[in-house]
Amino acid sequence: MQKLVKPMEAADQPKNIAQVSPSGSDTSPKFVYRAWYCGAWADELGDNLLARRILNEPIVMFRDEQGAAHAISDICPHKFAPLHLGKHLGNTVQCPYHGLEFDGSGRCMHNPHGDGKVPGAAKVRSFPLLEKWGVLWIWMDPDFAPDESLLPDFSQLTDPGRRTIKGMTHVKGNYQHSLDNLMDLGHAMYLHQASVGTTGTMPKVEQKVVQDGKSVSDLRLYRNMMAPRFYAQHFPDPSREMDFWSDVQWFPVSLARNFVGAAYPGNARTADSVNQLGAHFLTPETHKSSHYFFANSRNYALDDAAADAAWVTWQETALSKEDSSMVEAIQQYEADVERLGMRPVLLTVDAAGMRVRRLIQQMTESA
Amino acid sequence: MQKLVKPMEAADQPKNIAQVSPSGSDTSPKFVYRAWYCGAWADELGDNLLARRILNEPIVMFRDEQGAAHAISDICPHKFAPLHLGKHLGNTVQCPYHGLEFDGSGRCMHNPHGDGKVPGAAKVRSFPLLEKWGVLWIWMDPDFAPDESLLPDFSQLTDPGRRTIKGMTHVKGNYQHSLDNLMDLGHAMYLHQASVGTTGTMPKVEQKVVQDGKSVSDLRLYRNMMAPRFYAQHFPDPSREMDFWSDVQWFPVSLARNFVGAAYPGNARTADSVNQLGAHFLTPETHKSSHYFFANSRNYALDDAAADAAWVTWQETALSKEDSSMVEAIQQYEADVERLGMRPVLLTVDAAGMRVRRLIQQMTESA
Amino acid sequence: MQKLVKPMEAADQPKNIAQVSPSGSDTSPKFVYRAWYCGAWADELGDNLLARRILNEPIVMFRDEQGAAHAISDICPHKFAPLHLGKHLGNTVQCPYHGLEFDGSGRCMHNPHGDGKVPGAAKVRSFPLLEKWGVLWIWMDPDFAPDESLLPDFSQLTDPGRRTIKGMTHVKGNYQHSLDNLMDLGHAMYLHQASVGTTGTMPKVEQKVVQDGKSVSDLRLYRNMMAPRFYAQHFPDPSREMDFWSDVQWFPVSLARNFVGAAYPGNARTADSVNQLGAHFLTPETHKSSHYFFANSRNYALDDAAADAAWVTWQETALSKEDSSMVEAIQQYEADVERLGMRPVLLTVDAAGMRVRRLIQQMTESA
Repeated sequence: MQKLVKPMEAADQPKNIAQVSPSGSDTSPKFVYRAWYCGAWADELGDNLLARRILNEPIVMFRDEQGAAHAISDICPHKFAPLHLGKHLGNTVQCPYHGLEFDGSGRCMHNPHGDGKVPGAAKVRSFPLLEKWGVLWIWMDPDFAPDESLLPDFSQLTDPGRRTIKGMTHVKGNYQHSLDNLMDLGHAMYLHQASVGTTGTMPKVEQKVVQDGKSVSDLRLYRNMMAPRFYAQHFPDPSREMDFWSDVQWFPVSLARNFVGAAYPGNARTADSVNQLGAHFLTPETHKSSHYFFANSRNYALDDAAADAAWVTWQETALSKEDSSMVEAIQQYEADVERLGMRPVLLTVDAAGMRVRRLIQQMTESA
Repeated sequence: MQKLVKPMEAADQPKNIAQVSPSGSDTSPKFVYRAWYCGAWADELGDNLLARRILNEPIVMFRDEQGAAHAISDICPHKFAPLHLGKHLGNTVQCPYHGLEFDGSGRCMHNPHGDGKVPGAAKVRSFPLLEKWGVLWIWMDPDFAPDESLLPDFSQLTDPGRRTIKGMTHVKGNYQHSLDNLMDLGHAMYLHQASVGTTGTMPKVEQKVVQDGKSVSDLRLYRNMMAPRFYAQHFPDPSREMDFWSDVQWFPVSLARNFVGAAYPGNARTADSVNQLGAHFLTPETHKSSHYFFANSRNYALDDAAADAAWVTWQETALSKEDSSMVEAIQQYEADVERLGMRPVLLTVDAAGMRVRRLIQQMTESA
Repeated sequence: MQKLVKPMEAADQPKNIAQVSPSGSDTSPKFVYRAWYCGAWADELGDNLLARRILNEPIVMFRDEQGAAHAISDICPHKFAPLHLGKHLGNTVQCPYHGLEFDGSGRCMHNPHGDGKVPGAAKVRSFPLLEKWGVLWIWMDPDFAPDESLLPDFSQLTDPGRRTIKGMTHVKGNYQHSLDNLMDLGHAMYLHQASVGTTGTMPKVEQKVVQDGKSVSDLRLYRNMMAPRFYAQHFPDPSREMDFWSDVQWFPVSLARNFVGAAYPGNARTADSVNQLGAHFLTPETHKSSHYFFANSRNYALDDAAADAAWVTWQETALSKEDSSMVEAIQQYEADVERLGMRPVLLTVDAAGMRVRRLIQQMTESA
């Protein structure tokens, strides 16, 4: 059941939203632990040991002999050596320093020293992993069992009726700045002029913000405009005016799916449209950096290498450079924003993003 | 009206001066705001957006359609994006992220979103700029109107009877370390042996320290010496002994003019002398870094490209490398100096520099 | 008189040792000052000024006209310029900034300014140096006279019956992590597989830990094994099983000598064996970095350039890369270890290392 949220007018900002400042959330930063995060693309993990810091935890991922993926703490409890510098031995990771071996549950399975007894304290934390839709989803809360029902649907990623292009980048910024970016796709009109073919002006838009349980959607429709080149080029007559939409939906805590496309007037969001589903997973590395996993799944030109290349270019320019550079620039000004006590001025475009910030803040407080 | 200040003997240091340690001023650092700083050379600013951090404020400078220069905060009040990454549109700067436009007064002149109303809070701080003598002077105090009478005379920079060579560098050091350097030009005998042609020994010097209101001068005259090559080479017989002087005058807070030259005995500081006026503007970037603007205006060899090149070399070696490297090395030892509780030992050469430090400390305390 | 210490079983760890965590020692880190440290290899110091930070003190070393080595503070007491950027003038160092000259006792011997009187405060701290066995040993405690009897015997370094290969590296890690490494040479079975020719498994070992006064030794004998290639290759029949031993002895605070070799069964540690003495001096630079001086003195192949090269390679790979990279990786996890409140799990191999940590902790507390 959906609840419609009227887009906020600037003059109509609720006081309590105005206090959820981007900088405020970093003054005493907390992570949300009771949630699924993208730990890795599943195909990043073969026979290798994959080290990654997630929610500030140093983690090493590996597969056992049955191919099941595991994630354990990367810090050996003996001398604190990084396990990922060791060897992958069947079902275990062998510490590079003294040869202790740990399995996917974090238990030490072998101590080569002395009488070989394993000290009771010789274990590391294990993090539940769920492999689904080509993603290794990681559960970071040690106090609650992982709950698969909390995982939103990203079946698009392995939908045989779509073509998916994946990638990732590292962002030197808090993940919430990236979520701000995603929850207001209108920024494309300015920030992505080069990559998406927008014109640097803001066309008239019909905007709706919808909250469905803990999920928040921002829906935008631009009628009778010259659609951005990226989409228009797949139509017989790209010079005709079209309807263009860019919808985005957020799921706790750092997952978003966007739905963008163009169609001749009256056909927006129908089967006749040229559309793509975007997946955006912003996994916090630290409070000031993130792993940004992205994928674009299109319903057109499925076997078209040029279309593949165009989406690779899109990811390398719009997502990895334009969006992420902006997030990093904002992160660099964070200390100034805090020093100056600045509060963000809210515009109509921020209704969804601020709602997301408020929900995240509630989650950090209740956790 | 000038007040003569006897150079201090090392044994005769006033207690209160001895307590103005270079490190002390950085333990609880404060800037002086009620003053003109060099924000930029005027010719740095054409159609571009010029970003610069000054007294720890991120600032963007631009010219309006009439050519008047403006300086406003670089942090967009909406999502805290850096305005200097946006576009220069006539009289405004357009934010790169969502297209808000700000004019030189800091007001938001255009909101392309929703009904286009501009939220009352959508404004940024504006910093008064005064363009004079080829400099964009910036006034950093929000509580006091800019006072042009506080600007000392640097008309030398655009004096048609002189030839001026300008430049700037970035120094990873507190500006007061650079002022120490300038207020004791005797350091040239050691630090600038390569660039200025000194000999690594200290000749006999007549030194006077003069305070005139809030300005401090250090005047030095070396009689009957072999003048440094840099000056001597412009005389018919460079092998004759000459009088050589190097005077320097400081104006609050970070402006200095030096007057250096050589003449045959008895002609020091007269029209027959070969002299140059140096301008040195040390604009604090942070408490640990500075923008160093420098200019040398000579009264000889006005149309001499070789003389131009010599002064460019001087700026690149003596000022940007020798002086600034020394300041940076001192800055790097600052944490050690504080940890060890070191107080600077004072020599006669420090009389002017310590007076300047004391005046700056008074200004920070009264501000 | 030696006291035998039984190797600890993991289940038998004394509570007070368990509390000497590697991270714990860095939470409120202290250095031990009443000890000799390796300041430099003697042949690093000729006519040059040698700057080195030791126990967080910036120091400059130089030789006087008689060749005697001196170490004084590198911070000029006048303007805090680094003396090592100045000139070496016979018996003094001349400050690069204003020409003050300091001799090896730290006294200012020349002030070129004003009347030339030297202010009483114009002096720097001097650190006693002892040149012996090719090492400049430095004494860091200002409150106690240097005590040569505290210097352990490293005459091996200049023993004409041995061939010594020396080197040094910089380690971005606390010196105690490096001592942990040295006090458990069994790590070679895992960490040095490539460089030393071990097999990545742990052979049966006879281990003894001996404390002799304030010195701690860890003695290990592996009987009837295939000796590591590095040693076996010097025997007529390298394919025979041998006895292999690796002993290490620690002396306060950061000096270690190891004794490693191979022999046909029954000849371990005898004149018939192929052995080498290693010297390892870990001089703290800061609490998070060290100067690692190492030397290997062998009793075989004295005039063999290939053996020289092999030991150079050993130092460049096993010591500078494998060991030091591990120490640096552990240092990088230190903040995580502290945040997570991790205590090291102890194994039998840690008996000597933990005893060393406990003795160092006692020294920091009594100092």
